[in-house]
Amino acid sequence: MWWENKMMRTFRVRLKQKPGVIGHLLAAIGEVRGLIGEIKTIQMGSAAVVRDIVVFADTPEHMHELMQVVRNDPHSELIEVRDDVLEMHQGGKIAVTSRYKIDTLSQLRRVYTPGVAEVCLKIKDNPEVARRFTSISHLVAIVTDGTAVLGLGDIGPQASMPVMEGKAALMSCLVGLSGMPILLGTKDVDTIVETIVQISPTFSAIQLEDISAPRCFDIEDRLKERLDIPVMHDDQHGTAVVVTAGLINAAKMADVSLKSEKIGVIGLGAAGMAISKMMMHLYGKATLGADIAEHALARLKKEGGIPSTLEEIMSTCKVVIATTGVPGLIKPEMVRPGQIIFALSNPTPEIEPEEALEAGAVFAADGKSVNNILGFPGIFRGAVDANVNRITNEMLVAAAKAIADIASPGELVPSPLDRDVHKNVARAVALTALQMGMNREDLSHYFDD
Amino acid sequence: MWWENKMMRTFRVRLKQKPGVIGHLLAAIGEVRGLIGEIKTIQMGSAAVVRDIVVFADTPEHMHELMQVVRNDPHSELIEVRDDVLEMHQGGKIAVTSRYKIDTLSQLRRVYTPGVAEVCLKIKDNPEVARRFTSISHLVAIVTDGTAVLGLGDIGPQASMPVMEGKAALMSCLVGLSGMPILLGTKDVDTIVETIVQISPTFSAIQLEDISAPRCFDIEDRLKERLDIPVMHDDQHGTAVVVTAGLINAAKMADVSLKSEKIGVIGLGAAGMAISKMMMHLYGKATLGADIAEHALARLKKEGGIPSTLEEIMSTCKVVIATTGVPGLIKPEMVRPGQIIFALSNPTPEIEPEEALEAGAVFAADGKSVNNILGFPGIFRGAVDANVNRITNEMLVAAAKAIADIASPGELVPSPLDRDVHKNVARAVALTALQMGMNREDLSHYFDD
Repeated sequence: MWWENKMMRTFRVRLKQKPGVIGHLLAAIGEVRGLIGEIKTIQMGSAAVVRDIVVFADTPEHMHELMQVVRNDPHSELIEVRDDVLEMHQGGKIAVTSRYKIDTLSQLRRVYTPGVAEVCLKIKDNPEVARRFTSISHLVAIVTDGTAVLGLGDIGPQASMPVMEGKAALMSCLVGLSGMPILLGTKDVDTIVETIVQISPTFSAIQLEDISAPRCFDIEDRLKERLDIPVMHDDQHGTAVVVTAGLINAAKMADVSLKSEKIGVIGLGAAGMAISKMMMHLYGKATLGADIAEHALARLKKEGGIPSTLEEIMSTCKVVIATTGVPGLIKPEMVRPGQIIFALSNPTPEIEPEEALEAGAVFAADGKSVNNILGFPGIFRGAVDANVNRITNEMLVAAAKAIADIASPGELVPSPLDRDVHKNVARAVALTALQMGMNREDLSHYFDD
Repeated sequence: MWWENKMMRTFRVRLKQKPGVIGHLLAAIGEVRGLIGEIKTIQMGSAAVVRDIVVFADTPEHMHELMQVVRNDPHSELIEVRDDVLEMHQGGKIAVTSRYKIDTLSQLRRVYTPGVAEVCLKIKDNPEVARRFTSISHLVAIVTDGTAVLGLGDIGPQASMPVMEGKAALMSCLVGLSGMPILLGTKDVDTIVETIVQISPTFSAIQLEDISAPRCFDIEDRLKERLDIPVMHDDQHGTAVVVTAGLINAAKMADVSLKSEKIGVIGLGAAGMAISKMMMHLYGKATLGADIAEHALARLKKEGGIPSTLEEIMSTCKVVIATTGVPGLIKPEMVRPGQIIFALSNPTPEIEPEEALEAGAVFAADGKSVNNILGFPGIFRGAVDANVNRITNEMLVAAAKAIADIASPGELVPSPLDRDVHKNVARAVALTALQMGMNREDLSHYFDD
């Protein structure tokens, strides 16, 4: 989910310096369904302009087609095609760095021996100061076994590293946490749980990522039981938080009451199950759920939900959320007037928003609109700052509301690059911890500004 | 070992602007055995000078004595006493950081979805490119269970974090590797091995640190058998490399042939056993070894060494290396004229170098002279760059010779802050890999400059 199946390349193009030339070229690319990203001017001459144009295609063949379009343009010359993304990935996207330079013996004696010994003994004598004097305070493990990565499925732990590094890079850039990818060489639930427990003293929180359902439920539950630090499976709760934020704003825009209307979730994988649970927690009523797997329906029932079917949900629920991974599952004739439909599967949704609206839906969105980057950085920042031993439903709901609140009028969710979003989410989570008396860290300075 | 039991504080002192004042104060501190570190001028006035003076003491009581000395000085005023070391440790010394800023949607699409998906698939299809396009290529796990930390013993994993972070910070500053501390919540050998195996896909090498003997031998051996990436217990081989470098230079200075003379090692813990093995590998002959533990002597015999006693080694070996942790174990009357004696236990050696020299030793050193920072950064850099599946004895010997070679004439070992040391060590290790045909990475550019 949350992923578009697109290739990205940078075309360096020499264009004649003449009105309409670039417009003509971009229109030609658009005609064969090529999408345009940013455009940079590299060189501006009196006769010609050199520009880097970022283009998106669906497949390598499609990309070749776009290149052909440029080659055929009478006023353009394709100088080179670059794969910037791959170039950026050379050597990886993250690094473990020292906060201090170590150029002199005096610095060495401070960050290493002999200086360090006194700090070690201080922690040995008072284990609770470990966070104050070590990086444990900001280290979050981003753990995966690579079994459910983006829309790519079970690609294995090392192939999932670019995604984990991306999450770590976002953690660092957006909220200043040290996300550390941990790639597991096993898919066995017992071994995964045991391994994470054994390395847990290193971290102040555990973020589970891209672990396939239903294994993810068991792994998360057992880790929560064993560990005294927050454990969160992002594909469940991070996603549920962001979807809930979007639903809150969609309902507001469509003037629909989520509290009184019937809610149905189609597809009870990691995301669908967590969305169901959050809706039930938030609105205090059972949601309907449909899935082809018996164990998923059983799990929903155990959580207080009502096992149902695709047809029943479409015909009885005002609010429908689909997370099945099945493109086009929802036919326009199934849509009832006035429905809110979130068809979240990527790259192709269960029903295109335009189709759903045409069929009478009052609001429709696909997975592109909701991005879980909106959730996890702030949730972990708040939980780590409060030093809670777990992330509760109340904290997740507070995070969802914070995201919904900061969106501009008419916006489903805010931009994930807006730093204020993450600050507000962190604050909402920490404040909830404070209200529940769960914070093990003094938060008084946290709410000053 | 390799650690001095000293407290470090910064005294901010206001001194009368008058010749001899600072000399008088420092002399007074020296009279009560206080050591002086760097001195910084903070403020220079016509009547007074404010300076930050770093002082070292053995115990808190000793530190108070030093403070009293300053207070009693007629021309000085003690303004404040700071614990700079503890201040520097606030929030830890390392961070996981992004190599790229993520401020725009276009950057986000490159480091995260959708751009990342193509890189994932590339690795899935060709697992060998994982290193090229991820941080696995420079991530080294620094793993400890906290059972044998510095001279502090079994202080537990979290209390050892300041040391592990120090090593990670040095890795980053000296050779640009990403050292990631992993603190283990178990001391069980099977569990430790299993845990490291399961997280190993994340890393290009495993550095074991501060794990107590004899467990460390078994853990290292089993991991080497299980993993396809280098595994090195630094307290064994890193230490052996640096001690060997020092011995090579000591022998040269003392005109002693390590190849023909008898070598004895007193204390067969992690360091002593590895030093014995390296001597045997390097000079092709059995070394003598003494230890109070039967299993240590049995292990030495298995490795081809000769179990012996303290007395026999002192009375028959030209070269004696002691790593027992027992202060003053070697009495002056045991020393024979012409011996080379490395008494390496910290903070107090088996015999003080001055005493040994007075008793007739031709060369004597203690643990302060040899620092394993000289070894591990370059060894791992070379091994990771060559992408070898293990660090061999030949590579370790090459590292030792590289360290010995770069020391100035009359110097036992070079300064660990000399970047050239680590460059030369890395190059020696990589070159050895190349010569043995063990490199899995093209190294042609590595030896250009």
